[in-house]
Amino acid sequence: MSLLRPNIEQMAGYQPGEQPREAGFIKLNTNENPYPPSPRVIDALRRNINETLRLYPDPMATAVREKAAGTYGFRPEQILVGNGSDDLLTIIMRAFVAPGEVVAYPMPSYTLYRTLAQIQDARAVEVPFPHDYSLPAGLRQTAAKVVFLANPNSPSGTVIPPSEVAALADALVGILVVDEAYVDFAEADALHLARERQNVIVLRTFSKSFSLCGLRVGLAFGHADLIAGMAKVKDSYNVNRLGIVAAVAALDDIEHMRANAEKIRQTRARLTRELERLGAYVWPSQANFVLARFPAGEGRPTAAEIYARLKERRILVRHFNQPRLEDCLRISVGSDREVDILLERLWEIWQPAAGSLHQSDNSRTRQDISPPSNMEATHKWSEP
Amino acid sequence: MSLLRPNIEQMAGYQPGEQPREAGFIKLNTNENPYPPSPRVIDALRRNINETLRLYPDPMATAVREKAAGTYGFRPEQILVGNGSDDLLTIIMRAFVAPGEVVAYPMPSYTLYRTLAQIQDARAVEVPFPHDYSLPAGLRQTAAKVVFLANPNSPSGTVIPPSEVAALADALVGILVVDEAYVDFAEADALHLARERQNVIVLRTFSKSFSLCGLRVGLAFGHADLIAGMAKVKDSYNVNRLGIVAAVAALDDIEHMRANAEKIRQTRARLTRELERLGAYVWPSQANFVLARFPAGEGRPTAAEIYARLKERRILVRHFNQPRLEDCLRISVGSDREVDILLERLWEIWQPAAGSLHQSDNSRTRQDISPPSNMEATHKWSEP
Repeated sequence: MSLLRPNIEQMAGYQPGEQPREAGFIKLNTNENPYPPSPRVIDALRRNINETLRLYPDPMATAVREKAAGTYGFRPEQILVGNGSDDLLTIIMRAFVAPGEVVAYPMPSYTLYRTLAQIQDARAVEVPFPHDYSLPAGLRQTAAKVVFLANPNSPSGTVIPPSEVAALADALVGILVVDEAYVDFAEADALHLARERQNVIVLRTFSKSFSLCGLRVGLAFGHADLIAGMAKVKDSYNVNRLGIVAAVAALDDIEHMRANAEKIRQTRARLTRELERLGAYVWPSQANFVLARFPAGEGRPTAAEIYARLKERRILVRHFNQPRLEDCLRISVGSDREVDILLERLWEIWQPAAGSLHQSDNSRTRQDISPPSNMEATHKWSEP
Repeated sequence: MSLLRPNIEQMAGYQPGEQPREAGFIKLNTNENPYPPSPRVIDALRRNINETLRLYPDPMATAVREKAAGTYGFRPEQILVGNGSDDLLTIIMRAFVAPGEVVAYPMPSYTLYRTLAQIQDARAVEVPFPHDYSLPAGLRQTAAKVVFLANPNSPSGTVIPPSEVAALADALVGILVVDEAYVDFAEADALHLARERQNVIVLRTFSKSFSLCGLRVGLAFGHADLIAGMAKVKDSYNVNRLGIVAAVAALDDIEHMRANAEKIRQTRARLTRELERLGAYVWPSQANFVLARFPAGEGRPTAAEIYARLKERRILVRHFNQPRLEDCLRISVGSDREVDILLERLWEIWQPAAGSLHQSDNSRTRQDISPPSNMEATHKWSEP
């Protein structure tokens, strides 16, 4: 007889993207930033590699709370620092959701929401996104203790405008968690809702836009009562000393992050255009990745096959073997050079006959651009 | 109405030891190592402060698992790496204990066990230690899903011999977690039980003996099935890149740790003798701290007052305001110089009239050494 809880025994476990141990891969599979963190972060870390590592970190990471409070216009009591935003998602689930209670989220989205619900033995209500990834109306009717909304969404890169997020928060009886891991690559954000509403928690991370996946620091913004409850649940010393140092230095040089985010937005626009030329459908992304659909048939490889052939060529992208995503790949926006290499390989794999021609023939594959079946007009919005 | 779960709303939350933000304190309150980590750790960290911080860590911290497997005679599949051993305790609670199920542990011990039980809404059965902190027989009769045994125990520093730990594991229907955070300062350990028994998990940490509290790395050893179940529950990227680097380098230079541990054992013996001369009762410790009882009365300050007066003098020790510990202080074994300063101050606070004499009068306070009321002979054992 297993000693595990039945819900743990039965679950598959979250499958993170591959992290190859060898070097030499072009990694476009886990939405890491192709550009290094700020030189100020590097300097601050070097200064702190010393005997103080023998000491515990500040349990509440006060320096980060204070710095983030100043940067984003909050009080420190409205901010909790986590070991990445995954830690904060775990804390939210444990603080607010009892076993058997309902959590809800749209699908497809970040699959960790489902995993965390399974671990907590909560009831997960998964509300399908429309094909354009606009806000599913059904999300209001779940009576969930917590609703998770990744915005921009992963893997689609699409966004729900802040006014619609606010209306959703107002319609809910429980907490709305707006997971803004990718928001620094977007045109607008909903952070103000964490200040204005008593039932909104906004999550941010230093992983993506600040190029610090390796140090595991995330932020939760919300009403001081929500934050105080979450603080009871977190591990005592959940953020390491160097994570604290790096986060403060990163916020001290927020212009470095913004400049990188702008470069990535430009590369994203080019990647999108080129994937469309190639014959893929690309959802309108405001994140540092795009979701591209590669229609199968006519002798062309499936998305799973493209993934495998790219991997043979030491390029990693993400293929999700789940409903609505089987024929899609999620591709992180790398450096311009990484994107060039990816596109070369994709021409070889996807349009081999045209591979040598594509540079000089901009029009030849235009007719291949086709939206997914059932596709509605993609969602448009005009807020700043 | 609070949005928190009722069990979270009602709990106080774990109170970690103070981590002063200003420098200048002699910190003898959270069992940090007074000596720096290995120079090899510092070098390895410096080499890894670079642009790779933009990348996620290896989700399973494979390099640490492999290195620890070689060092301790396990297979990597029998090891899980955590964000400190607190993370592993959290993972154990979530993987094996459903709400309403029983966990058990002796008291007084690490108070986080109670906090984690409250968060999980588990039923905590707290079995009092005898006054000599030998194994309480009642621990076998709890039918607990998980029994937690800190060994050496905190705050007493006392140990249960491995043969008795093995017998306890064999008597239990559930899992025995042997929390060996302090074992590198002890004469024996129970790590072999994690290899030999299907229901034993042994926890280790890099915080104390390896002087790496700041980087948050702990290890769980156990049957591969237990470890695989725990891996489903952990956060995807729970250990940061620099923690992985530091842990591997620390195991590469395990002699550095062993030499520091030996120095601390010697200082511990001296601190124990001197506290006894001062008039305190000291439990026999095999950890990097001692628990000392300061009998009140005859105009002498209480333990809480000693704590406060030491803090005024910028020395932090730990006072636990809980049953059986009100008249005790837990004092981390610092450097010899830190211990000298502590002892000077304790003479001033506790025996002011003798303060100027104590160096030259070894016998004067011997009559003050008194075991706690109800004290049995302290536990002896002779295993290697």
